[in-house]
Formats: sequence, C-alpha cells, structure tokens
Amino acid sequence: MPHKKEVMVGVDLGGTSIKAIAVNGKNKILATEKKRTEAGVKPEALIKEIAGVVESVAKNAGCKMKALAAVSIGAPGAIDIRRGIVNEAPNLGWKNVPLSDALESLLGGVPVVVDNDVNVGVIGEHALGAGEQIKNLVGIFVGTGIGGGIISGGKLYQGSNGWAGEIGHTVLLVDGPVCSCGHRGCAEALASRTAIERDVRDAIKAGQKSLVLQIMKEKNKDRITSSVIQEALARKDRVVQEVMKRAEYYLGILVANAVNVLDPARVVIGGGIAERLGDDFVAPIRSTAYEYFLHPPAAKKIKIVPGALGDNAGALGAVVLARKRLDL
Amino acid sequence: MPHKKEVMVGVDLGGTSIKAIAVNGKNKILATEKKRTEAGVKPEALIKEIAGVVESVAKNAGCKMKALAAVSIGAPGAIDIRRGIVNEAPNLGWKNVPLSDALESLLGGVPVVVDNDVNVGVIGEHALGAGEQIKNLVGIFVGTGIGGGIISGGKLYQGSNGWAGEIGHTVLLVDGPVCSCGHRGCAEALASRTAIERDVRDAIKAGQKSLVLQIMKEKNKDRITSSVIQEALARKDRVVQEVMKRAEYYLGILVANAVNVLDPARVVIGGGIAERLGDDFVAPIRSTAYEYFLHPPAAKKIKIVPGALGDNAGALGAVVLARKRLDL
Repeated sequence: MPHKKEVMVGVDLGGTSIKAIAVNGKNKILATEKKRTEAGVKPEALIKEIAGVVESVAKNAGCKMKALAAVSIGAPGAIDIRRGIVNEAPNLGWKNVPLSDALESLLGGVPVVVDNDVNVGVIGEHALGAGEQIKNLVGIFVGTGIGGGIISGGKLYQGSNGWAGEIGHTVLLVDGPVCSCGHRGCAEALASRTAIERDVRDAIKAGQKSLVLQIMKEKNKDRITSSVIQEALARKDRVVQEVMKRAEYYLGILVANAVNVLDPARVVIGGGIAERLGDDFVAPIRSTAYEYFLHPPAAKKIKIVPGALGDNAGALGAVVLARKRLDL
Repeated sequence: MPHKKEVMVGVDLGGTSIKAIAVNGKNKILATEKKRTEAGVKPEALIKEIAGVVESVAKNAGCKMKALAAVSIGAPGAIDIRRGIVNEAPNLGWKNVPLSDALESLLGGVPVVVDNDVNVGVIGEHALGAGEQIKNLVGIFVGTGIGGGIISGGKLYQGSNGWAGEIGHTVLLVDGPVCSCGHRGCAEALASRTAIERDVRDAIKAGQKSLVLQIMKEKNKDRITSSVIQEALARKDRVVQEVMKRAEYYLGILVANAVNVLDPARVVIGGGIAERLGDDFVAPIRSTAYEYFLHPPAAKKIKIVPGALGDNAGALGAVVLARKRLDL
C-alpha cells in the first residue's frame, strides 16, 4: 500500500450501470467493479449504491477509505463542474442533484470530482489511450447515444458555457428521424446503437429475414446490444449488414463534418460498438470520412482510430481529470 | 499625414473584384477603392492590377508608398500564410502563386501579408464589428459560397493544419444537392447565394411565376444578386420568398450545429445577403437555430447577429491581422 494518498477511484456512471476502477499514482488499474442499476431509482438511493461500489473497489485495491486521494465521476448529463452538481441527466431522471457533496459526506470527506461522462471518456482516450496525448483531438462515442468531446491545445475544449462538443447532436439529415433530444436528423438519431436497433427492428417488421431475434434469445438479451450486432455480423445477417453499412456511412460524414470545422490531428471512435468490432467498424467510417474531407491532404495527416481503453475510458479519464483539477 | 508609418492598405481579393481600403493607425478608413476584374486573367496581370489599386487608394489617403506600413490581403483559397503563397484558389484559377513576394517587389518593398478571405472577414467583424472583441465567436459568411471562421480565446482558431473553420462545407443533408466542392448536401449547396439562384431558376423553369427575370433585366444583372433578391422580396415575389425561407431554415440548423459543437458567445452572419437584408435575413435564421440548440438556456446567452462591417469586413480584418502579425 502506498504511503501518501495516491490511490484514486474513477467512476463511470451510466444509465444502466455503475462502473468503478481503483488506480495507483501512475493510473495503473488495481481493481475494477461493475454493478447494474435499476431504472427509476431515486438519487439518494443511487448515490448510496455508488458509495458502496467505491468502498468495495477501494478495498479490493487494498486501500482504506481514509487513504483514498479522491473519487472522480463521469456522469451522463449537464454538469456544474465547479460545484459538482448534476444539473440535468435525462437517462438517470436527475435534476440539480448535488452529487459531489452527497457522496463526500457518505465517504467521510474524500474529495469528489464530477464531470460529464463523454468529456472524461475523451480525456481518458487522449491521456492514456488512442489519443497518445496529441494536441488536437476529437472523440466520438457511439453507444445508446452519440457523445462527442474536443481536445484543443492538449486541454478539453469547453466553449463559453461548458456546452461545447455535442457532435452527436449535429444535424446530418435535415428533417430526418426524430432524435432523443427532440430535434430531427441528428447523428444520434441516424447512427447510435439505438438508431441501429430501431432500423433493424423496422426491417424485420417490414418482413425482411434476420437472425437477430434468435441471437437475442440465445444471448438472453432484450435489446440489440453490441454483442448481438457482432454475432449477427459474424453470421452474415443481411439486415444487420445493411443497417450497419448505413450507420457507418453517416458516421463517416459526421467525422468529416467535425474535421472540416475543427481540423484535429486525430479522431478517436469509442463506445460499445467500436470496442466490440474495432477496426471492422472504424474502417468504413474512415473511408467515407476521407472522401468527405474538404482538403484531400488531410486524409494523409488526420488519423481516425478506434478507442484503446474500451469500457474503462470514462473511469480512467475521470481520474486523469481529478489529478489535474485537484493538482495531485 | 502621419509622421511614423501607420497607414495600411487592406485588400479583399474576390473572384470578381479587388476591394481596397486605406486606414490610419486607429484603423479608421481614409479611402476606399473597388475595381471589377475579368475572369481568367493570369496571376501576373491580376497582381499588377492589385498593385495599381493599392497605389491608388494609398494616394487618395494622402500616403506615399514609401510611408505605407504594410499591405494585407484576404484571398479566396488555401493560403500558406507563413510564406504568403496562395496554394490554391479555384475562383481565381490560381495554384501556388507567391502573392506576397510578387506584390512586395511591385510595391518597392512594402511588407505584404496574406491570409484567407473568410478568416480576415471573421477577424474584421470580431475586432471592429459585430463581434465586439468577445472571446469566442463563430463567423458565417453567406455569398457565392458559405465561408466560416472560428475565434477561440480571442484568436483565430486554425486547427492542426490551418484547415479549421470550413463550416460551409459541413453536410446538413446527406445525399443532398452537389456542392462546388464535389460532395453532396453541404450547407453551401443548400443555402449560399449560388444555391438560392439555382433553386429560383429551377422553380421558374418548372413553371412557377416570378418577377426575378424582370428585376434582373431592370437592374441589368445577369445573375440573381443580393440586390435582385432584395427587390424581389420587396415586391413579395412568392418564389423568392419560398426559396429564401428554405435557405434561412438550413442556415438556422447550420448555426445550431456550430453552436452545439463550439459553444461560442456570439455568431455573426456576414456576406452580401446579410449586408443587404440585415435582420430580415438573420431573424428567421436565429429562430430556427434557437429551436435546434441542444441546451435551451443557450438561446438566452448566445447572440446571433448580422455583420456590422458589410463589404469592408475582409479588408478591415486584413489590416487588423497585419498589425498583429507584423507587431505594428
């Protein structure tokens, strides 16, 4: 066990699970823990569950609570980072929850840092993953939604009000399908896992033959998860092949839009599908993006790569952020 | 006449004209000059014409050439700003033209600075116009094409390779109309003056009644210029009303896309149409953009305004840039 406080816990708080890691002073992972959460649970109850997961992962890392340097959380929604308040998290049903204060008091005063889940995911990939600490980077996370983050000059680009980076809610197809945000034609409504699931189900309803429902039964899943998509592609399911091809095409154009505006040195594609499928998913995105780059030489200079940290990107990014924020 | 060298000439080099201004040390305009250029003229000949316009505007400002602090040019295309070379300017038919060196030798050694025309336009509006020097600003210029520029932290955001800011070539309508860049569905292909002209002509060809051809004849124009659009709107021409409404809708979504990614404090809409129509053009853009903002409070914080410098934005921005670049 380290003598000075250097062990930290990073938490990725999702709509369906709490994922926590404990790391040493060099951000090496000492222990991990994942717990599924129930939908609709009240903030107080969920915060207690988070505290339990934090205590458990710290214990597994051989670190007592009072020896813990900090806990850092990536939460899905709009965050008041200065005060550690989750202003709005639709996936959790939260509004103005003082996450930082509540958790600090449950954990006996350990400092708690909070930021947006996608921001910390991008920080994680930038600092410890596929970003390799290059100066200008764009991260795009494809999951239930599509999140985005921008690193500019080595730092998270937050904009004037902390709202920057919403690449997933840029409109790619005016008057296209309705998005979770209420608008039409956002990238998220065209190419997220949720959009892919919608399109596969629509194709099946329209009478197209697919193995997807059978694969879901085999895997005991009630949703078309990344692993269901992977299996369907392995079995050459035509419906899933077509839907994925279209989603990758949209994502390629999304990447090109971001590159044409931001001119980063690298684009990292993260999230569940990218983690499962790796470059099989990213290669077609890359090829469409290169086609849509306004400046053709950019195709030689700007790399488009899958994330390297998988499911740990958010929790690892959270601890990187906390070390900077708390100067540890 | 000033004793030390402080008078500068700013030039906005367009596809159809050379516009020059001479300013004093406080960037007050002392004289202006505009000369139409012929298409297809060779670089050497056009550079001689630029030199002539510079000499003439300096003279009208009461400044001898040897007393001129610098000449600064905004040119349409990809610029090597360090060496003052126009790498590629499709509107001029230029490739790798050493504009800075050629002009310096014609002007007896006066320093010549070159940058992209849209970049200097955004710098102009930021420093001296509707931008009021706020830290984070997005400029969108709607003309023959749609140009964009980003001010971040008070400075032009250039990206990793100097290619940032191509907001006009973000795709808004996947598989939409072909753009000048060769891709499909870019904002420029949907809402530039060129796209507006195409849609109005298509509607007329399809048999819709419009006063546009008559107005063009009255104004002796062979294109649907901003002034033709203005007159058609004044006469309540239904075709132009409909086409403009659609273009403004696309531009509203374009602004929202930029805001959702960049979170600036202000968006300035410049270019010929905005100059002619002012807030009649910008108000509908603003209202669509506010609808498409992901974070509704942004509508209260982020202003969307017409440019304040009109046709002078580029030339004024060029001199602002040159003063910084040359530390004058």
